[in-house]
Amino acid sequence: MSSAAIQDFYPDDTSHCFGCGRLNSEGYHLKTRWNPQHPDETIAEFVPRSYHTAIPGFVYGGLVASLIDCHGTGSAAAAGYRAEGREPGTEPPLRYVTASLKVDYLKPTPLGPPLVLRGRIAEVKGRKVVTDVSFSVEGVETARGQVVAVRLPDTMA
Amino acid sequence: MSSAAIQDFYPDDTSHCFGCGRLNSEGYHLKTRWNPQHPDETIAEFVPRSYHTAIPGFVYGGLVASLIDCHGTGSAAAAGYRAEGREPGTEPPLRYVTASLKVDYLKPTPLGPPLVLRGRIAEVKGRKVVTDVSFSVEGVETARGQVVAVRLPDTMA
Repeated sequence: MSSAAIQDFYPDDTSHCFGCGRLNSEGYHLKTRWNPQHPDETIAEFVPRSYHTAIPGFVYGGLVASLIDCHGTGSAAAAGYRAEGREPGTEPPLRYVTASLKVDYLKPTPLGPPLVLRGRIAEVKGRKVVTDVSFSVEGVETARGQVVAVRLPDTMA
Repeated sequence: MSSAAIQDFYPDDTSHCFGCGRLNSEGYHLKTRWNPQHPDETIAEFVPRSYHTAIPGFVYGGLVASLIDCHGTGSAAAAGYRAEGREPGTEPPLRYVTASLKVDYLKPTPLGPPLVLRGRIAEVKGRKVVTDVSFSVEGVETARGQVVAVRLPDTMA
C-alpha cells in the first residue's frame, strides 16, 4: 500500500479532471488514499474556499456532489488495483468514470473546516465498482453518497 | 409568467449560492426559467469553461451534477409559486434546498457547446418538490437527474 494518492497514478492523458486531476491548474486536486487507520476505507480531505457557499455559512451542495463523485472514481481505481492483486503504477493503468451518482443531504454542511470523505467499497464486479461515501465535517456526517463507476476502456486510459 | 429567472427573485440573503446565486461573484450564475415554448418545462443554459474538464474533451461530471442540483432547486421554487397561484416576487419568498440528488451519466458530455437543462416537475407535495432533469448538448441527452428539494423555513429565506 502506498501513501501516494490514487490520482497521482492516473496517466497524464486522464489527469485533467477539474475535481481530481493533478494537471488541471484551476481544479480541486482531490486526493484519494486508503486510510492507514482503516485499511478497507478510502479517505480524502478538501478545504472549501470562502465562495463555495450555498446559503451563507454553509457549503454549496454542488461541491459536496462533485467531491463525492471524484472520491468515488478514485476509490474505484484503488479497489480495482487491489482486486487484481497489484499496485497502482503497474500496467495497465486503471481509470474509472461515473455511471451514476446519488447524494443524500442529511444536514447543512458548515463552511470553513476541512471536508472529509470516507469511502467503503460496496461491490467490485467486472468493470464496475460501487462505492458508498460518507461526507463529514468535524466528525459530523452531513451527506451520504453512492457512486457507481465503470472502467474506461484501456485504449482511452 | 415572467421572463426573468427564478433566481433573480431569491432574497439577497439566499443569493450567494456558488451555482446560481446572483451575488456570488465567483459562481456560475445559473438561471432557471419556465420555457416559453413548453409551459410545463423549466429551462436553463450554461456555457462551460475550458477547464471544466473530465477526460480531455468532455465535461467534468461534478459540473453536470452541480448544474442539475441548482436547476432542480430553481425549478422547485418556480413550481412552488405556481402551486400557490402567485408570481415570483410576491411574499413570502420561496427558496428550496436539496434533500437528495441522483444523476445518471448516459454518455460523455462534449466540452464546448452550451449545456441545456430541462426540468419537469414530478411532484409538489407540502414543502417538497421533485424535479426530473434532462441534460443535453446540441440536442443529445447525455445525463438525467432527479432532484428532491425541500422548502427552507420562512425564517431562513
